[in-house]
Amino acid sequence: MVQETKPWEILKEYMQSESTHEIKTYLAQLTTEDVVATVSHLNEQQRLTLLSLLTPEEAAELIDDIPSVQAAKLIEEMNSKEASAIIAELPSDDQADFLGEIPEKNAEAIMQEMPQKEAENVRELIRYDDDTAGGLMVTEFLVFEEEVTVGEVVEDLQSNADRYEKYNLQYIYVTHIGQFSGVLNMRTLLLSKPTVLLSEIVLRSALTVKDKDPLEDLINFFDTNDFYGVPVVDDRLQLKGVVLRKDLREAQAEQENVEHLETQGIVGGEELRTMSVWLRARRRLSWLSVNILLNIAAASVIAVYQDTLSAVIALAVFLPIISDMSGCSGNQAVAVSLRELSLGVIRPFEVARVWMQEVTVGLLNGLVLGMLIGAAAWIWKGNVYLGLVVGGALSINTLIAVSLGGTIPLILKRMNVDPALASGPILTTVTDMFGFFLALTFAGTMLNSL
Amino acid sequence: MVQETKPWEILKEYMQSESTHEIKTYLAQLTTEDVVATVSHLNEQQRLTLLSLLTPEEAAELIDDIPSVQAAKLIEEMNSKEASAIIAELPSDDQADFLGEIPEKNAEAIMQEMPQKEAENVRELIRYDDDTAGGLMVTEFLVFEEEVTVGEVVEDLQSNADRYEKYNLQYIYVTHIGQFSGVLNMRTLLLSKPTVLLSEIVLRSALTVKDKDPLEDLINFFDTNDFYGVPVVDDRLQLKGVVLRKDLREAQAEQENVEHLETQGIVGGEELRTMSVWLRARRRLSWLSVNILLNIAAASVIAVYQDTLSAVIALAVFLPIISDMSGCSGNQAVAVSLRELSLGVIRPFEVARVWMQEVTVGLLNGLVLGMLIGAAAWIWKGNVYLGLVVGGALSINTLIAVSLGGTIPLILKRMNVDPALASGPILTTVTDMFGFFLALTFAGTMLNSL
Repeated sequence: MVQETKPWEILKEYMQSESTHEIKTYLAQLTTEDVVATVSHLNEQQRLTLLSLLTPEEAAELIDDIPSVQAAKLIEEMNSKEASAIIAELPSDDQADFLGEIPEKNAEAIMQEMPQKEAENVRELIRYDDDTAGGLMVTEFLVFEEEVTVGEVVEDLQSNADRYEKYNLQYIYVTHIGQFSGVLNMRTLLLSKPTVLLSEIVLRSALTVKDKDPLEDLINFFDTNDFYGVPVVDDRLQLKGVVLRKDLREAQAEQENVEHLETQGIVGGEELRTMSVWLRARRRLSWLSVNILLNIAAASVIAVYQDTLSAVIALAVFLPIISDMSGCSGNQAVAVSLRELSLGVIRPFEVARVWMQEVTVGLLNGLVLGMLIGAAAWIWKGNVYLGLVVGGALSINTLIAVSLGGTIPLILKRMNVDPALASGPILTTVTDMFGFFLALTFAGTMLNSL
Repeated sequence: MVQETKPWEILKEYMQSESTHEIKTYLAQLTTEDVVATVSHLNEQQRLTLLSLLTPEEAAELIDDIPSVQAAKLIEEMNSKEASAIIAELPSDDQADFLGEIPEKNAEAIMQEMPQKEAENVRELIRYDDDTAGGLMVTEFLVFEEEVTVGEVVEDLQSNADRYEKYNLQYIYVTHIGQFSGVLNMRTLLLSKPTVLLSEIVLRSALTVKDKDPLEDLINFFDTNDFYGVPVVDDRLQLKGVVLRKDLREAQAEQENVEHLETQGIVGGEELRTMSVWLRARRRLSWLSVNILLNIAAASVIAVYQDTLSAVIALAVFLPIISDMSGCSGNQAVAVSLRELSLGVIRPFEVARVWMQEVTVGLLNGLVLGMLIGAAAWIWKGNVYLGLVVGGALSINTLIAVSLGGTIPLILKRMNVDPALASGPILTTVTDMFGFFLALTFAGTMLNSL
């Protein structure tokens, strides 16, 4: 195997020799993937040094490429003057996201350095919830009053071409005394005579969304309407911004990701290993320490039946198996419920329907798993009753586990508790308790045959 | 609480009374979300009936809204004439996806009903892997030879406006004797004189991708280039299709979803509860039955130390706790590794680096969890040695679990084994074994004090 030099090693060398020009040229020719990996291999001080070597525009591009938790941390650590120069190069929705994520003190210092109008704009955006139209919209869009002519618009577009470069140029939005009146696509504009007023050609039936509309409504909207973006208005029909389809997909992916990390016990947003050890350990512990208490509670069932266990010590081998397998079966049902909820094929109130659909799968799989474990116990100890006890316990407990696993997410959702986070721990605690209880009481009734 | 009538109940009533007109009007005014839920509440026969009442265009819209596994099943069950009429209304990439997903016999029957040229086109698309440019591209795009004039193009656009309606009309692609030569955006076209030849205005530096390029490369491409779509060429530079940004995001989300379902033991793609019980039970069992064998192997460690356990029966209470908690800690590390791999901040060969970053978290969390469980054991039995045994075992095993959890996904990835699927079972088996072994051997050495 040829040992190729890693991109981060090359970059670190350039940084050591402070050859700014080489750094820029090298970064520019890396793929996004390599940029992400390279930045992750620098420590925080090196990252800050790197950013300071780049122009604000280049730095903004880098900030845009790397994971957003990393980017926010960098913006937080930079001095506010440098940070505001980089922030200025980002689209307004990203500006608000980053400034909303870092401590308020730092955000305030950065906004002090920004042009007043831009700072006000960002302050307004930060106030919106992340997962609403207001939180997702950009404020870079083209807007003209109705009584402007096509010629004036074209002239404005040409003379401000530089500034408009990062705008979404698919549509022009038209207002009447500040209130939204409609849209115009570029083609219509280009094909109209210069003397025509916008009021004559504006499409007035254009759809809008409200600034407080939640992410789900927007996803719905873009599913039914094949638009590139949709104008956002407030309660007084003032045009506030534009939600772009691409930003929506990102927000949705982000939301799903958080959900999936939560089911695995990663709480409080994304964890990257480049974060501080203390933060990572603390966050993971917050979930583990609740879990260990639940575990102790579940295992206390075993303590109650210690005498039975002493009499049939072989059972101790099977208790962890019953606990683990029931957890697995239940978690499969949890995963399907979470997915069906997010797809919209089930609603939170349909507990009975989901249960009906799980119970047959639970019966079948419980039977198969119970027979497997029962056979193993029978063969090992040559005692058919031991097989019946552990097989029966696992069969019944699998049924309980899938019933609970399927329905708990729906019940939590109705109680406004995050189902991705809480379903797993609740499920395993209850199924552990039932599993231990079933195995040990079955054993208790057959004590003479075991 | 007011009992509102559910949309599916309303629709079922309309279907019972066979009022086609009402059904259409009612469906048309439902949100996508309600359509998805409603269709999920019909059984397969009712779904087929519903589709047969709609025009092919309406049916295609419905097919597009519902989860794709549901849609594929319906296409499979329909008679081939009806199915081909609906398929004809879909974009070419969806046509290929659906026909690639259903049994070959049914797909062949449907393609027999399609116009020969379209069928050939789909046959070619099906041959590409799903996650390559060829598998993701659409074949609806505008292409003209270089020696055509602007006037001729505009005329063609106008006279074929109907047919082009579902095309991506952002760009026009230009070829020279079939080979790709460049792109033209609509604006340039509209602003050029009718007599100008395309060869004079075509942008020749346009970027392309190869038909065999994998999804990751395409994501990279769209991350660095702010295009709406990119032309796809084969090895001989023949223009084969266009990959649209939106299709890419969907494919990426799909890939991540499958990965997350796999970590929870849902194998073989999406599971919806409307699928047959047998299929669902079988798929879940395929994963559970491997797991139970691994579980039995792990628990056999307990059997080896039965004598120790008999002497200190209290330990039996703690074995499931040690097993479960180590699994949780390890799975957190697995989740972070899977996420970091998909973000690109770590590469599969960086096992040592990841381990270094996990080991401190493992030490810290192991210490805390060990002290918690140790204290619980000490208090319960009033025996500090029991506390030391179970606390020590959990501490060390947490360290082992995060070390393995962090690195196993990378190792599996290097071995080309799907890390989402295999990491969990391997992790829990090994940590169970170590956990039981540690607790029982520690107990063995302190047997006199316990």
